[in-house]
Amino acid sequence: MAGATAVGIKASGRPDLAVIATTRGPDGRRPASAAAVFTPNAFAAAPVLLSRTHLAASRRTEAGRLGLEGADAGWSDGIVVTSGCANAATGIAGDEDQAAVADALAAALETRRDRTLLMSTGVIGVRLPLDRVLPGIAALVAEGMSAEDRGLEAAAIAMCTTDSRTKAATVALELPDAEGRPVPVRVSGIAKGVGMIHPRMATMLAVVLTDAAADPTLLRNVLRPAAARTWNQLSIDGDTSTNDTAFLLASGAAGAAPVAAHSPEALLLGRAVEAVARDLARQQAADGEGATTLITCQVDEARDDADARAIARAVVASSLVKAAIHGRDPNWGRIVAAAGNARLADAEVLEAAGLQPGEASQRAGRPAAIDPSRLQVAIAGTAVFDGMLDGPLPFDRQAVRAAMDAPEVVVRLTVGLGTGTGEAFGCDLTEEYVRENAEYTT
Amino acid sequence: MAGATAVGIKASGRPDLAVIATTRGPDGRRPASAAAVFTPNAFAAAPVLLSRTHLAASRRTEAGRLGLEGADAGWSDGIVVTSGCANAATGIAGDEDQAAVADALAAALETRRDRTLLMSTGVIGVRLPLDRVLPGIAALVAEGMSAEDRGLEAAAIAMCTTDSRTKAATVALELPDAEGRPVPVRVSGIAKGVGMIHPRMATMLAVVLTDAAADPTLLRNVLRPAAARTWNQLSIDGDTSTNDTAFLLASGAAGAAPVAAHSPEALLLGRAVEAVARDLARQQAADGEGATTLITCQVDEARDDADARAIARAVVASSLVKAAIHGRDPNWGRIVAAAGNARLADAEVLEAAGLQPGEASQRAGRPAAIDPSRLQVAIAGTAVFDGMLDGPLPFDRQAVRAAMDAPEVVVRLTVGLGTGTGEAFGCDLTEEYVRENAEYTT
Repeated sequence: MAGATAVGIKASGRPDLAVIATTRGPDGRRPASAAAVFTPNAFAAAPVLLSRTHLAASRRTEAGRLGLEGADAGWSDGIVVTSGCANAATGIAGDEDQAAVADALAAALETRRDRTLLMSTGVIGVRLPLDRVLPGIAALVAEGMSAEDRGLEAAAIAMCTTDSRTKAATVALELPDAEGRPVPVRVSGIAKGVGMIHPRMATMLAVVLTDAAADPTLLRNVLRPAAARTWNQLSIDGDTSTNDTAFLLASGAAGAAPVAAHSPEALLLGRAVEAVARDLARQQAADGEGATTLITCQVDEARDDADARAIARAVVASSLVKAAIHGRDPNWGRIVAAAGNARLADAEVLEAAGLQPGEASQRAGRPAAIDPSRLQVAIAGTAVFDGMLDGPLPFDRQAVRAAMDAPEVVVRLTVGLGTGTGEAFGCDLTEEYVRENAEYTT
Repeated sequence: MAGATAVGIKASGRPDLAVIATTRGPDGRRPASAAAVFTPNAFAAAPVLLSRTHLAASRRTEAGRLGLEGADAGWSDGIVVTSGCANAATGIAGDEDQAAVADALAAALETRRDRTLLMSTGVIGVRLPLDRVLPGIAALVAEGMSAEDRGLEAAAIAMCTTDSRTKAATVALELPDAEGRPVPVRVSGIAKGVGMIHPRMATMLAVVLTDAAADPTLLRNVLRPAAARTWNQLSIDGDTSTNDTAFLLASGAAGAAPVAAHSPEALLLGRAVEAVARDLARQQAADGEGATTLITCQVDEARDDADARAIARAVVASSLVKAAIHGRDPNWGRIVAAAGNARLADAEVLEAAGLQPGEASQRAGRPAAIDPSRLQVAIAGTAVFDGMLDGPLPFDRQAVRAAMDAPEVVVRLTVGLGTGTGEAFGCDLTEEYVRENAEYTT
C-alpha cells in the first residue's frame, strides 16, 4: 500500500508527502522485516537518527522473533517520506518535529511508533511545516493509498526534488513455498537523487520492497553488499548528503517460505535486490543535476574487486573526466590520471562489500594497485591507451567523438593485474549543474 | 639565475621552457641543497620519476657531505621546466625523452645529470618535441639567463598553462653569519596551477628558492610541513595531477651560516618558506580555472590541527559549496553537510604535518570529530549557524549576499571541541570551469 499527496512543503505545490505501508497478514499484523543503510555524515538528518532508533527498538520489542546481529535492521509497518525539507541541522526542535511525524504515522497505521521508518530530502536547516504534514499523513492513510503499482509510483513522484523524472525498477523471481512449489515473488524499488550524491554507505533516498519472506538479518546481509556494489559506486558531485537512506522491506505476502541464510534462495533474492538497486543507481546517475550523459566505468583484471570498484569510482568522480565527456572529448589522459589517484573506500563500505574486518580496516583509504605499463583504456568501444604498447594508441578522434554523442558513454579499464571486476556510475559535468546549484535557494 | 624562452611546445607560441640555475660559489661549484614533494599519482609523469632518481643519486655521489634521512632531498644545480606537455603516460619513450632533457641541462650547466631537477605541465599523453627543446635549453643557458628578479619572473610566465596570471611571492628575513652578525636572506617562490588540483602531497608546480644555507635534511623538514599546511590544503577541482612537484632550493649565497636542525633559525626559515607557500597557494586558488572568487575556510576549536585541516579542506572541496558561493548564496546547509563528511588526509600527509607515524596510519581517512550541537558557522563575517542555539540563526540575507560579492569569501567554522586550527583554500565553481574543461584539447 502506498500513496502520496501535496501538503505544501514544496513551494511549487507538487506532491511532497508519501506513505508506504506494508500489507496486513491474515492475523491483522503487518509482518514486514526491514534493513537500512544510512549516510555516515556527522550532520545526519533527524529522520535518519530516528529511523535508526526505531529499528533498534523494534528488535528489542520483538523478543519472540529471530535474533539479530548488527544494527540497522528490524521490523517496520510503514515509511513516511517528506520531500522539499531535509529536516537536517535543525537541532532538538527538528528532532521533536520528526518524532511528531512518526507519531502521526503510527496513529494512522494503528501501530507503535518504533515500527515506523522515516525519510526526508530537500533544503537543509529548514523546519517541517507540522501543521500541514501531520493532518496530511492522517488524510493520506485514510483515503489516499493504493495497493496497485500506481501507489508506489505516486510515492516515487512525491519523493523527487530537482529530479527530472521518477526512478523505479522491478525484478520478478520465483521462490519455493513451504511445500517446495515455486511462488512468484517481486522486488520493486523507487529512488530519488540528483545532487549531493557520492559513494559512501547509502547515497540518496531509496525504498526497495519485496513480498518475499525474510528475517531482518537476512535482509541486512542482502542490502549491504548490494548497496556497496551499486549506490556506493554512484557519484554525481562528490558530496555525501545528510539524508541518504535506503530501506529494504520484506512483507512475506507472496506466500513463499522464509528465505534461509546461505541458501540458494538467499542468493536469488540478493541478486534480485542488487539488480533493482543497480537499475535505480543508473537512473539516478543519468538524471544527475544538469546531466546529459550517463557515464559508466567498467573495470576488469584489477588485483581484486575492491580495487576495481575504487578505480571505477575515481574515474566517474573526476570533475575533469566529467567535463571532458560533456565536451565529447576522448581525453584518456584525464582518465588515467583519475585512475592513478584511486583510493579504496571506507572500512565499513569494504566490509559491507565482503572483505574481512581486519583486511577492510587495513586497506581503507589506501591506493588501488595500478601499473601504467599494463593498463588498457577504451572509450565508447575504441581502444585509446595500451600501457603494454608504450601508451597512447592511434585512433580516429572524430569517430570516437561521434560514438560519445550518446545517452551513455562507457569507459573501460583493463588493469592487467588480476581478476577483479567492478563498475561505477556517474554523469557529465555541465554548465547547467553550476547554474542550478548557484541559484538553488538555501 | 633564471630565464625562459619559447620553443614551440605550446601551440600559442608563448614561452614554454624555463631554466633556474643556482649561483656558483667562489670555488666555482653550485652548492644548492634541495628538497621536493611530489604527486602520489600512480601515473606520475616522467619528470617526477626522474627528479626522484636524481635526488637519490645526488645523495650517493655526495658522500663527503652531510648524511640525509629519508627520500626526496639531495643536491641540485638547476631545474628545467617544460610547459604545454606533461610528458605523462608516454611510456618508456617518454622516460627517454626526459633523460635527454636532463642531459641537455647538465651539459649547459657543466654539471652531472643527477644534479638536475625536472618539472613539466600540460597535456597528458603527448611526447616532448625534443628537436626544439634540446637546442632551446643550450641557447637559453648560454644567453637568456638573468640573476635579477626578472629572470625568475620570466620562468614564472613560462610555467603557466591556463593560468590567467603568474604567481610569485617573496619573504625577507635575517639570519646570523658565522660570527653571529645578522645577514639579509630571501625566500622567493613561483608557482603555476589552475586545474587538476587537489590536496595530496604537492599539487601543481612550485619552485621556492632561498639564499640561506641549509643541508637537504633540514630543507626537507622545512618543506614537508609547509606543503602539508598550504598546498595540501588547496583544492581547485578534486583531481590530483600526474605532475605535481614543489622544489625548495637553498644556495647559501647570502653568506649566512648554515641553519642548524632544531635551532631558532630553522624555525625562522620554516616560517618564511611556509609564508611563501601559503601566498602562492592563495594565488593559485584565486586563479582556479573559471574562478571568480577565492574561498578561504578557517577552522578553529577543532579536536586538533589535523581535524581542523580536514574540515577546512572538505568545505572548500565541495562542489555544492563552490557553486553556492559562485551564486552569492549564503547556503550554510551545504557547508555543514560538507563539514560533516570531512575525512582526514593520507598517512603520508598527516606524518608530514607532524603526526607520529603510528597515529598518522591509524587516523588516515577517518572522520574528523564534529558535533552538530557545538558547531558555529560564519560566512563573510556574519554568524549564520550556532549548534548551541539549536542551529539556524536569523541573519540579513541581502547584507550577507552583498558581503559575499568580493574577490575573497571567508567561511569560518568554530568546532567547539578543542584547540585545533587549520585553513584551506579553494575557488568557486563556475560555468566557465565547465566550458574550459569540456573544450580543452586532449
